[in-house]
This record gives sequence, C-alpha cells and structure tokens, in this order.
Amino acid sequence: MAKRSKVKVMLLGGLHEIGKNLTVIEYEDHMIIIDCGLAFPDDDMLGVDLVIPDITYLEKNAEKIHGVLITHGHEDHIGAIPYLLRSINVPIYGTPLTLGILKRKLEEASLLKKADLRPVIAGDVINLGVFKAEFIHVNHSIADACSIAINTPAGVIFHTGDFKLDVSPIDGKMMDLTRIGEIGNAGVTLMLGESTNAERQGFTPSEKNVGKSLESVFSNNKDKRIVIATFSSNVHRVQQILDASVRHGRKVAIIGRSMINVVGAASELDYINVPEGTIIDIKDIKRYNHENLTLITTGSQGEPMSALYRMAFSEHDKVKLGAKDLVVLSSSPIPGNEKLVGKIVNALVKSGIKVVNDSIADVHVSGHACSEELKLMLALVKPKFFMPIHGEVKHLYAHKEIAEFMGVPSKNIFIGENGMVLELDKKSAKWNGSVQAGRVLIDGSGVGDVGNIVLRDRKLLSQDGLIVVVATVDMQEGLLISGPEVVSRGFVYVRESEALMEEIRKKAQKTISDTLYDGVRDWTELKNAVRDELSKLLYNKTKRKPMILPVIMDL
Amino acid sequence: MAKRSKVKVMLLGGLHEIGKNLTVIEYEDHMIIIDCGLAFPDDDMLGVDLVIPDITYLEKNAEKIHGVLITHGHEDHIGAIPYLLRSINVPIYGTPLTLGILKRKLEEASLLKKADLRPVIAGDVINLGVFKAEFIHVNHSIADACSIAINTPAGVIFHTGDFKLDVSPIDGKMMDLTRIGEIGNAGVTLMLGESTNAERQGFTPSEKNVGKSLESVFSNNKDKRIVIATFSSNVHRVQQILDASVRHGRKVAIIGRSMINVVGAASELDYINVPEGTIIDIKDIKRYNHENLTLITTGSQGEPMSALYRMAFSEHDKVKLGAKDLVVLSSSPIPGNEKLVGKIVNALVKSGIKVVNDSIADVHVSGHACSEELKLMLALVKPKFFMPIHGEVKHLYAHKEIAEFMGVPSKNIFIGENGMVLELDKKSAKWNGSVQAGRVLIDGSGVGDVGNIVLRDRKLLSQDGLIVVVATVDMQEGLLISGPEVVSRGFVYVRESEALMEEIRKKAQKTISDTLYDGVRDWTELKNAVRDELSKLLYNKTKRKPMILPVIMDL
Repeated sequence: MAKRSKVKVMLLGGLHEIGKNLTVIEYEDHMIIIDCGLAFPDDDMLGVDLVIPDITYLEKNAEKIHGVLITHGHEDHIGAIPYLLRSINVPIYGTPLTLGILKRKLEEASLLKKADLRPVIAGDVINLGVFKAEFIHVNHSIADACSIAINTPAGVIFHTGDFKLDVSPIDGKMMDLTRIGEIGNAGVTLMLGESTNAERQGFTPSEKNVGKSLESVFSNNKDKRIVIATFSSNVHRVQQILDASVRHGRKVAIIGRSMINVVGAASELDYINVPEGTIIDIKDIKRYNHENLTLITTGSQGEPMSALYRMAFSEHDKVKLGAKDLVVLSSSPIPGNEKLVGKIVNALVKSGIKVVNDSIADVHVSGHACSEELKLMLALVKPKFFMPIHGEVKHLYAHKEIAEFMGVPSKNIFIGENGMVLELDKKSAKWNGSVQAGRVLIDGSGVGDVGNIVLRDRKLLSQDGLIVVVATVDMQEGLLISGPEVVSRGFVYVRESEALMEEIRKKAQKTISDTLYDGVRDWTELKNAVRDELSKLLYNKTKRKPMILPVIMDL
Repeated sequence: MAKRSKVKVMLLGGLHEIGKNLTVIEYEDHMIIIDCGLAFPDDDMLGVDLVIPDITYLEKNAEKIHGVLITHGHEDHIGAIPYLLRSINVPIYGTPLTLGILKRKLEEASLLKKADLRPVIAGDVINLGVFKAEFIHVNHSIADACSIAINTPAGVIFHTGDFKLDVSPIDGKMMDLTRIGEIGNAGVTLMLGESTNAERQGFTPSEKNVGKSLESVFSNNKDKRIVIATFSSNVHRVQQILDASVRHGRKVAIIGRSMINVVGAASELDYINVPEGTIIDIKDIKRYNHENLTLITTGSQGEPMSALYRMAFSEHDKVKLGAKDLVVLSSSPIPGNEKLVGKIVNALVKSGIKVVNDSIADVHVSGHACSEELKLMLALVKPKFFMPIHGEVKHLYAHKEIAEFMGVPSKNIFIGENGMVLELDKKSAKWNGSVQAGRVLIDGSGVGDVGNIVLRDRKLLSQDGLIVVVATVDMQEGLLISGPEVVSRGFVYVRESEALMEEIRKKAQKTISDTLYDGVRDWTELKNAVRDELSKLLYNKTKRKPMILPVIMDL
C-alpha cells in the first residue's frame, strides 16, 4: 500500500508574531492560503516602510493554489495582497466589508481590475479543490470578521482568525458560538488559535461599554467640540461616536485619509448607518459652533504624519485646537507607540486642551479574546491538536498553558516558527521539515532589495555618520596626484571642527603617500590602510566610529 | 529707596521632563545648584549617548556659586556632575550613599581628586552665602534621599526632590513628615514638587510589599535557581532579595557592572547588610546547586548589552539559563522600553524559562508619590507659590490640578520651561525673562558638537543610505577628466543592483559633461546639478531618497 499523503500546515508570515500574516494548507496538488497581511518594521529596520511575508514557496506552487481566504480587513491580514497579486493571481474570498477595504487598497495599487474578488457571508461554504472552507462569524475590533473551518483529507482544521466574544455587539451579531460548537461536536483535528491576549485574565469587555463611556463624555462636555481619535477600521466604534453625536445634536466631520476611506467603504456597504446630513465636510466646520461638532480623526497611535498629530502641533490647515476642545483617545497604544502617543498628549495639554484616554475613562476595549474566551473557544472546538498562532512567543506559550488547562495534552500542542511544516492526518500530527519563509522588507518601491548588509550600513551611518576620503593617484608611478578631499556628513558640525577635518585630511594624505611609497599597488590594500589609520585617529580624538569611505581613483 | 532684589529660580535641565535635572537659585551675588543630572537620548537623537543640561549660564556666573546640593544618587540627578566639574569646581553636598555612588562615577572620569565632596545627613543645615539649606529625609527607590528646604531672602523654598511616603520602609526610616510639617508651619514661599506619578490615583505601595511577594516567589520555586533583575540603585530591593535568599539558604551572586558598583558602595557604607559568606563571586556559582543560588542582575529595562540580555540570548560567558531557572523582573518598563523588555521575555520563554514580572506578581513598586502623597506633601508644606517640576507636561498639569484641589490658587501655580526665570520675594512671584538653557548632546567624547544639522544628516543617512559620486574635472577647459565613480552604502545591495548603479553612473557622467558644456564653472552649481538629476532618477526608479554626495575635484 502506498504511503498515504498528509495535509501540511505552514505559517509563512509574521515578524515577531508567529503565524500572524499568512497560513498555508496543502494537500498533494491542492493549496489554500489564509490571510495575507503585512507587518510594520521594527525600530532597527531603518528606512523600511513595510514588512511582508516571503512568498517564494507560493510562487513555486502557484498552479496548486485555489484561493486566498481572508478572515477580516485589518492590514496585518490583507496588507500583502497587492504584493501577492503581482505574481500570483488567484481568487480572494472575504466578507463584504473585508473586500470593500481591500478594494480601495487594490485601486491605489492599480490592481483592482486584475483581482478576482469573491464575496462570501458567514455561513457560506466554498469548494477549493480537495478542501471545503466554511466562514463563521466572530466578533472583533472590525466588523464582518470570521473564523474559518476547513474540511481537509485530514479532517477539519479550524482557524479562529482574530476574535473576541461580544455578548452585546453593536451590530447585534454575536459570534456564532452555536455553529462553532456544532463543528466541534463533529470533530476538529487541528485548531489554529489567535493568542494576542493570552496573558490577560478574564473576558474582554463588550464594545457597548465604550458607548456608555462615550455617552458620559458627551454629557459632561456639552460646551466643547469633541475630537475623537480611534482606529479607522473600528467601524463599530465610529458608529457609536456617530450615535452619541446624533443624540447630542452634533454634526460630525471625518478627518484623515484612512478614516475617510474606511468610513466611505463601510457606509456604502451599510455597515455604518447615520441620519442624512450628520456627516459634514471638514471644510464646513467653520459654519458650526464648537459645541455642535464632533471630529473623528486618525492618529490614535501617535503617528507623526496623522491628522491628530498635525492638530496637536498646530500644523493642520483646517483644524485649530484650543481650550474649547476636548480630545478623546479612544484607543490603547500598541507596544512601542507609548512615547509617540505621550508626545501628542503633552502637546495638547500644553495648549490647555483636556485629554481623555483609556486610563481615565473606559473609552477603549480590546478586539482580542482574553483567557476565558480562549478557554471557551477551546471548549467548543475541542481540537485533537492545537497550534497557538498570532502572538509573540510569550503569548503563544501562555495560550499553550490555557490549552493544557482545558485538557489538550501537551504533546498535542505545537508551537512552531515561520516556515516549519506540520504534517497532519486524522490521527497524528508532527513537524516535518520546513519551506522557505521569512520577512521581506519593502522600502519605497523596492521589494526585498534591502537586506542585512544595507540595514547594517544604515545603522552604522545613523550612529556616527560618515567620512568620505577622495583622492586620485597614479598607480603606476605610485604617486598621489590630487586630493585627498575629505567630506563628512552626520559626524561633527564641520564649521566648528575645521582643525579636526584638516587633521583627517593630512592623515589620509600621509597614509596614501606612505602606502604607495611602500610599494603597495593593490586598491583594496590602499583603501584599508586609509580606513584603518583614520579609524584609529577618529576614535582617539572623538571616541566615535564613523563609517569611513575611501574613494581612490586612478589617473 | 532702591529697588529690592528678588530671588530667582531657574530650571536648567530636563529633556522632556521639565525641571528634572538641574535647578538654580540665585540672589544678587549668591547662587546654589540643586541636582545636576543627565537624561538618556530620544529615539531620534541618533548616535547620541547622553544628554546633559546646558551650563553656559553657570559658567558665566561661576564665582557666585556656593555649591551643588544633591537630593539623591540617581543618574538623572548626579549624572552631569562630571561635566560640570570640568569647568566649575564647587563643593558638592549629599548624603553618604549619594556621594558613595557619585565617587565611583568621578573615579571613572578621573575627577575624584579634584572634587570637593561634603557629606551631610538628614537634619543638617548648610550655610551657603546668603542661603541656608536643610536636608530632610524622604523615601524613594534609592536609600538616603532628601528633600531640601532653602532659606532665602524671599523666605523658604522647599524642593521635594523625588519622593514617596513609605510607612514601612526597609531601613525603618520613614520620610520625616514631622520636620516637613514644622517647616510648613513656619512658612514656605515656594515649593518645587516632583510630578512623575501625578496622574496616578492613591498611594504608592510600600517597598515592603515587594518583600512579601518575593517571599512567595522563593517559597514556590524551591527547586529553581532564581535570577532577579532590578535597578542597581534600588538598594532596599537588593536588601530584600538578599534577605529572602538568606532565609531560603541560598548564596547570592551579583552580576552586571552597575549592580556590582552600587552594591559595593552600599555595602561599604552599611546600607546593605548581609551575613558573611552570602555573596559569592559569579565564577563560583558552579560549586552550588541551582536550588541554592540567587543571581541579582542588571538588565531589567531590556538594555541590549546588559547581563540579563546576554543571558537571555545565551551570550553570557558565565551564566547559562535553562528550564531549571526562574527569572524575576523586579521592575516596570520605563515608557519606551516595553519592546526591549518584551524581546528578552520572548527569548527566555522560548528557552523554556519561566518569567515572573509585575503583571503576574507584586514584585515591583514605584519610587514616586501618587496623587494622595502629593496632596499630603502640599498639606504639610502649605506653600504660598507652587511650581510642579520633574515630569512631562501632562504630569505637571496633573500636579497643578492636585495643587488647586488642595487650595493653592491657580495664579500662584507656575509651570515653566527650562531657562525661564521665576522672580520671587516673600509676597509675590512672577516669570521675568530667561537665561540660556537647553540640552547638550554627548556623543563619544564630544560634548555639544552634535547639533541639529548632524542629527538631520544621520536621520537622512539612516533612512535610505547614501550615494557618493566622485569625479575629476578640468574646470578651465570644462572637461570631465576621470570618473564619475559611484559608491553607495545603505541604499541597495549593490551586487544585485549592478544595472541601477551603472545607470546612476551614466546619468552622473552626462550631467557633469552637459553642465560643463553649458558653460557652468561654479562648483556649487555643478554639484547641485548632479544632486538634482540623480535625486529625480532614484526617486523614479526606487521611490527612495538617499543622500547624494557629489565630490568633484579640479585637476
């Protein structure tokens, strides 16, 4: 009897967060992709704009791929689709809001005509070769989010997507616990479970709680213009701000490109409902009194070019903030953004503007399941095997502990790394080999041309700047013909350091002449001599190590 | 009648935190300094090591200065003293532990012999020209911290220093509420109050609470080696870790340069007491079983070269961590360090090491007063005028609200900026002018030679790298003689971008030739032409903006 094929599960994306951006399921000649998102660069990825998953493995197997299934419309789940579509054109399945947001991205990348977008709604079952995928409604900080259950030759693989349980959701649609329970009762071989909040105890509060807090903010600040910053994709949050504004007789202006985009997409698709005339154009705010206005803006993470940032630093051309404004940060800083957010708050407070954030009032809730919700998911799905995904290592291990608490045997829990292949049949699962995976850095229009060497040089240049030494030599005669000229950038302020620059020039001159006089005729050797001598001199004089770049030309 | 002189109060230090590092009090020909600390650079101060206050104003008035009074031994209060002493040698007053820590710093800077260090103990009154300064004991996250009350011709100025109220301090010495109350009853004209935790409600818990938590960590992990990272200067924390270790029959090794330094200074001065033989050398830990060892280490803020970092990434030559270790982070990340700390935790968890931090157990408390303690201080001191200091803008304004709540009239509360001069007599206070103040950047051995232009260039270089174009021309004849050669760093990986580099070279060649042919003989014009043409080309091709550095030499 021939060896039975196995189903393979691979995580290709994620920067620190393993299995966040792109999951692949493969069986013989069939392959499907779940999510295709991007990550934002680390502090040490200097000059890098975005980070996408390495899709080499997908390109090699392009003819096998039946489609991409998108769980929801956040950047870390859809943001790399434009890059994927340039080399692989396959159908993309998602709910209407997810595809609505994706469409605007594809339009910007001039890829919309090429893309084969196929809307689904929760409950739909899609045939994808040997696989069948069912979308199941869950709650999250964006509307229209789904878990996906995939019927495979190894049984059902259940991918939670990002989720929380909201027993009082804004759109009335609670996560479909019943359907998840039915799928669990029928038997699930493997569950991939998101782990973002695995370290947090209890349940994440309902989005509706934010509505209550917003109501009291509006009630207590009837004399002020209320400026609220939040994530543009949080359609339900925006809806609640609109509702409060309508109740309090305020007009609402939407500010910031991504906010305008998402509110546009959500309104078109009826995910946001608001009485006609409530939303006004930003240029018309002058016609209304402060107390009759709400502004909804981007910038809740302190992003330096965002609308809120520009308002806080009086650089916004349409909105000037002052003592008659109240600013609400309906958000929580993503780790790493605390200082950026603090900078905005300081600027606002300095201008006499009161700021309300989630440490003062309950104006934000998370979109991710805390420990008890993760237990509930595990209790319903009852997977034989479990792979915590979508989290830093510490979150995955915290999720593992939760699964063990729920009775999943430790040996059945798999914490992988990007590229590792989990082989699966109905009764067994094990790691077996790996495929090419990792991060690809995007800088400008360049995809992948910024690698470790370039980053190392940028790091070096950023620390102590650079010294360029230029000279022309007659290599045959062993003579320095012209120069050396010394140019520096990012090292010292040259006008105040003329003596040092002259010393560098003289040392370079002497080094080149001496080296040539010693009979050296090798370019590399000559350049290294200059680099070594100047490094020593500069370190002695300044305790700094600028990059030294000798450019020596033959006559 | 001649106009009466006023007392002037000036804040010279602080980066974001106003009035944190250096305060000056001046009356006619008399001047004293309170604290002289440093700040750590912001993310955008590329390559900068430290930030110190601009002391130009002090240098100009050196002959007036009677001394520097130090409130406590933290870096942000003593760290700039070595820089001050190079130009101004005045007596430095501080408590024994403060001076003990300072001595080691001065020794490293070869300034110890020059320094005139004068120990004081709480209760001492120092005569400084027209001023009299009294040191008053307070609690803080370092032992031997003081408030300072200064008798001036404008009445008493009370500087809180950093403080908290600890009703059960480790050394048994509670903050001297009685003396503060007496000073308050006698009348205080101006209080300068630290504001770090002004946004936090309630009281900061006692350091002794940490001892209780540590005891249960030790009790629950009898089979493990316990590795505890904390601030080296937190002498009481170290004492409690030592106490728990002794109770549980463990030897203790101290790891990390600053930890060894501070524990050394504190032991010599009897601020740390431990049975002989408890502390062992790191090289001797092999002789003991894991369960009989505690390691106290630096690195609680995730610092990349710290001992804990090296242990977490298996780069420490003396300590290898594994499943038989428990790591305790007895600290809280300073805003901005969350990601660094997270990186260490992820690395530890991945190696199967359990990590306990302050979100899991009460293994850390703050050293700063929360709102109720700030109220208590205001209630005791009862100042006529109040200046919140030592905090970001938002903290200062929160402290202002607290003072208003305590009955200080708004018009008597002064929130300044570094350099502003508050003029004071017994009955009035007002801003009047300003003196030179600000930040001075330290990079290597350079003090102040890194300014905005250098930082801007480093930023530019760090984003997209650089292109150097080198050519020799015969300016008289208008001919390109040799080159151009094109060298790049931090832009693209050259081996994979040969075609692009060649295109750049050709464009540079054509631009130089054409510009010369057009009769241009001006160096700046020629260089600008090269810069402009290449910028355009590169932005079109790559959407990047590397720095372009043309070096054109005359034959």
